[in-house]
Amino acid sequence: MRRFLIVGHRADSTGHFKLDDLPGSGGRMDILAMSASAALFLSHGLREDVEVWLVFNGGKGGSPRTIRIIGSEARYLFPDERNMASMIRNALIRYHGKGELKATPGMYVSDTDLKDVLRLTAEDSEMIYLKEEGEDVRESEISENTTFVLGDSEDLTPAEESMLMSIGARKMSLGPTHMHTWQAVTVMNYEVDRRSNGSD
Amino acid sequence: MRRFLIVGHRADSTGHFKLDDLPGSGGRMDILAMSASAALFLSHGLREDVEVWLVFNGGKGGSPRTIRIIGSEARYLFPDERNMASMIRNALIRYHGKGELKATPGMYVSDTDLKDVLRLTAEDSEMIYLKEEGEDVRESEISENTTFVLGDSEDLTPAEESMLMSIGARKMSLGPTHMHTWQAVTVMNYEVDRRSNGSD
Repeated sequence: MRRFLIVGHRADSTGHFKLDDLPGSGGRMDILAMSASAALFLSHGLREDVEVWLVFNGGKGGSPRTIRIIGSEARYLFPDERNMASMIRNALIRYHGKGELKATPGMYVSDTDLKDVLRLTAEDSEMIYLKEEGEDVRESEISENTTFVLGDSEDLTPAEESMLMSIGARKMSLGPTHMHTWQAVTVMNYEVDRRSNGSD
Repeated sequence: MRRFLIVGHRADSTGHFKLDDLPGSGGRMDILAMSASAALFLSHGLREDVEVWLVFNGGKGGSPRTIRIIGSEARYLFPDERNMASMIRNALIRYHGKGELKATPGMYVSDTDLKDVLRLTAEDSEMIYLKEEGEDVRESEISENTTFVLGDSEDLTPAEESMLMSIGARKMSLGPTHMHTWQAVTVMNYEVDRRSNGSD
């Protein structure tokens, strides 16, 4: 199973942002929405072997929230930015209290914070931090069960990076070009697809 | 110079579409906007060596329109879908009459149709049609001056494909995964970047 974990440093965890202003009022919610699309969508449908975990650490008066989207279960998703952001927004607004809420088929929201997200995802997968200074993806082994961790418009903070590296993550690079998060997710899917299909 | 040419079969050439409904009222304008972003944007700025040409062939009562975005000249662009679509919409609405209008720095709109777009772009570049059945990109030579041609949510029509192939285009494939247009643009940039940097 392939998993993408995106850390939204300013992404509004309350859901009270404007769909007309995802970069500003959403705290770069555009990046989270497009990264989810890039991870989950093929030309004609969803990737059944992909999960996306989005961590929301921003928003006035908000507490950390995490949304999991499971490709094999997901319904009612469309790949354009606004539709994806709208589904995320609805899930965040509907969430009250503790535990995990199934907001829509395949979309789960909880109050899990990054530390616990890292612990949970590391239980069943290898952890890879996508960052420019890492080993080149084309020189690297990637196991079938991997969680790829990315920041949003900012890299992980030093504290976040320490947490991630302390559970045994490797750093991996997609080459010399500095991409947006959703571009990096697209390219990582492509690199792993190539290996799965023996065309690397 | 690297150029991406996206053919919007139903994309509203009048500009009178809703920013809140790019897939529907815009005729999959979401795909054109995200493809432009994927082509032009790096993590922190624009690619100066990239041009994007978007052909709009839809919209009620509309005539074909073409927008050229020149990375080295462009200003006021943001990578999120709505902002990019908004700039495109304004350019289309402001265009009246014939010839080419400079709508904003680096963004030009004209009444050029696909046939003439193909003729113009083929004058100074090699033409490559990105399609699943083509030769594998990793087995192929790509010259520095290339125009990559892609459909939107649909491949080129047989008539469009004939026009393109008749001017000497090659078909190239990004491998066995069928991607959205904006994902294919992202991956093509990545593949060419790898060659330019000698890391392929």
